[in-house]
Amino acid sequence: MTTEISPQQQEVEEKLVETVVASFDACEDPRLKEVMVSLTRHLHAFIRDVRLTEDEWSAAIRFLTEAGHITDDVRQEFILLSDTLGASMQTININNEAYADATEATVFGPFFVEDSPAIELGGDMAFGAPGEPCWVTGTVTGTDGKPLAGARIEVWEADEDGLYDVQRDAGSRAARAHLFTDAEGGYRFWGLTPTPYPIPDDGPVGKMLTAVGRSPLRASHLHFMVTHEGCRTLVTHIFPEGDPIGWEDTVFGVKESLIKRFEQQPAGTPTPDGRVIEGTWSTVRFDIVLAPSGV
Amino acid sequence: MTTEISPQQQEVEEKLVETVVASFDACEDPRLKEVMVSLTRHLHAFIRDVRLTEDEWSAAIRFLTEAGHITDDVRQEFILLSDTLGASMQTININNEAYADATEATVFGPFFVEDSPAIELGGDMAFGAPGEPCWVTGTVTGTDGKPLAGARIEVWEADEDGLYDVQRDAGSRAARAHLFTDAEGGYRFWGLTPTPYPIPDDGPVGKMLTAVGRSPLRASHLHFMVTHEGCRTLVTHIFPEGDPIGWEDTVFGVKESLIKRFEQQPAGTPTPDGRVIEGTWSTVRFDIVLAPSGV
Repeated sequence: MTTEISPQQQEVEEKLVETVVASFDACEDPRLKEVMVSLTRHLHAFIRDVRLTEDEWSAAIRFLTEAGHITDDVRQEFILLSDTLGASMQTININNEAYADATEATVFGPFFVEDSPAIELGGDMAFGAPGEPCWVTGTVTGTDGKPLAGARIEVWEADEDGLYDVQRDAGSRAARAHLFTDAEGGYRFWGLTPTPYPIPDDGPVGKMLTAVGRSPLRASHLHFMVTHEGCRTLVTHIFPEGDPIGWEDTVFGVKESLIKRFEQQPAGTPTPDGRVIEGTWSTVRFDIVLAPSGV
Repeated sequence: MTTEISPQQQEVEEKLVETVVASFDACEDPRLKEVMVSLTRHLHAFIRDVRLTEDEWSAAIRFLTEAGHITDDVRQEFILLSDTLGASMQTININNEAYADATEATVFGPFFVEDSPAIELGGDMAFGAPGEPCWVTGTVTGTDGKPLAGARIEVWEADEDGLYDVQRDAGSRAARAHLFTDAEGGYRFWGLTPTPYPIPDDGPVGKMLTAVGRSPLRASHLHFMVTHEGCRTLVTHIFPEGDPIGWEDTVFGVKESLIKRFEQQPAGTPTPDGRVIEGTWSTVRFDIVLAPSGV
C-alpha cells in the first residue's frame, strides 16, 4: 500500500473488509466459510494494494465477460486464465505433495475429455492425427515398487499442427485414448512425438499474454492421467529433453523429473512391433510410480 | 497457512510464485505489470492459505463458466459477484476519498444504460413504471458552495415489483432518465419511492449467497450519477430512512450520509406542481455536493 493513505481513509477501507467478512458469519459450512473469508481478505488486499482504478475494475469485468462468452464445451478460457497465472499449477502442487519416489504431477489443462477411445496394449492412440509416430513404453508401480496391473492410463496430446482433436471438431477423437497395464504393470502404445503449440490465444487470455509480453507457447508434452484403486490419481505430462520452449512453458507445468529423452529413429529403422513407418519415428520410456491414496 | 507444510513443500510453492511473477518481467506497461504481479501474489496467497483442493478449483472454474454464460447485454453476473464480495464498494471507496463536504459515492450496479431518455426539470422519470410517486428535489453545488448550473443528473431505479426496465425487456426505458440543473443548480423530478428488491439470484451468485446463508436483498435505493465539467463524477444512491434492509444491503452500498428521509404524503395531498395523484406519494430532498476533479 502507498503511504499517502490517510488514517480516515484506511479506516473506511478496513471497516468494509470486516463488514464483508462478517456477512459470512451465518454460513453453516465451515469450509465454505473459511474459503469465502480468505477470498474476501485477499481480494480486498489486492484491490487496496494496487489502488485499483474504476477503469481497471471495468476492464476486469469486461475481461471476465469475454472469457465467459468464448468458453463453451471445448474451449475453456477460465482454465487458460488459471493456468497462465500459475493458479492451476499451485493447486496441483498443494494437492500432490512429493511422496517417496512417486511421479510428480502437473497441470490438467483444458483438453481432457471423458469418453476417449479404448486401445489395446501396443495400439495406436493417434487415430490418424498428423505427427511423427512415437513408441511409448513403461511400467506403473506403487511406491513400494510392486507392479500395478490393470491401472487405467489416459493419454492425450496435440497433433503436429498444434491442435487437439476437439479443437478441430468437438466430436472427433484422435491423439487420445485409454489403455490398461498388463499383469506386470507394463504398458506400451503408439503416440506422436510432442511438439510445442500455443494455447488458444484468440481470446482475452491471449490478449493478456500479448499485453504483458509473454508467449502463448506451451512446452511440448504428452498428457497422462493414471488411476488405480488404492492410489492417488496422477495427472501429469512428459516433456521432451531439449525442447525449444521448455522452462518458458506459459502454464508453468515443467518439472525436472518429467523431462524425458525422446530418441528419434532414422527412417527405415525397424519398429518394435513390425509396424511399417516411412519416415522417422521416436521412442520414449516413462516409468510411472503412484503414491498411495490419502497421502 | 497451516503449520504442517514441510519446508520442502513451502519451497516448491514459493518458487512457483516467484516464477509466475518473473513471467511479467518483460511487460512494458509498468502499471499493468504492477497489477499483474500483485494479482499473482494475492491469488497464490489465497490458494495456499486455504490449501485449495482440486475439487474446489474445479468448482471455481464451473462457477466462473456459469457466470459467463448467464451474462449478456442486460445481465451482468460478474458485477453481481464483485458487488456481493464488496469488491465494487472497495473500488468506489479507493477512488472517491472523502473530500470536504462532497457527497459520498456508492456502487454503480449493473443496471445503468447509456441511452436514458431526457426529461425536463419537474418531469416524470417513471414512464409508467409501477410504484408510489416520489417528488425528488435538491441542488448541485461545488465544495465551495457555488451552484453548478447545467450539471447532468442521471437517475435510475427498480420499480415496486423490484425490477429495472431492462430486466423486463432489454429495449424498454422506464424509471430511468437524465435531466440538467437550472441556473441556480436546482433540480426536481418525479420518481418512485424506492423499495427493497433481490439482486438477480437465479444464477451462480444467487447460489453462492444461498450457500453462505446471505440474503440477496438490496436496501431500497434511488441511483444518481452526476457530472459537471471540472468536477469529480459522482455515482451514488440515496437510501430511505427506516428501510427494512438498510445496513444488511447485500452489496454493502449503504453509507450514513446517504440515508434520507422520504416523507410519505396522505392520499389527496396537493402536489407541488398540481399533478393529480390518487394514492399516497412521497417527497425527498437530496442536496448534492461535487468534489473538484483530480482530488
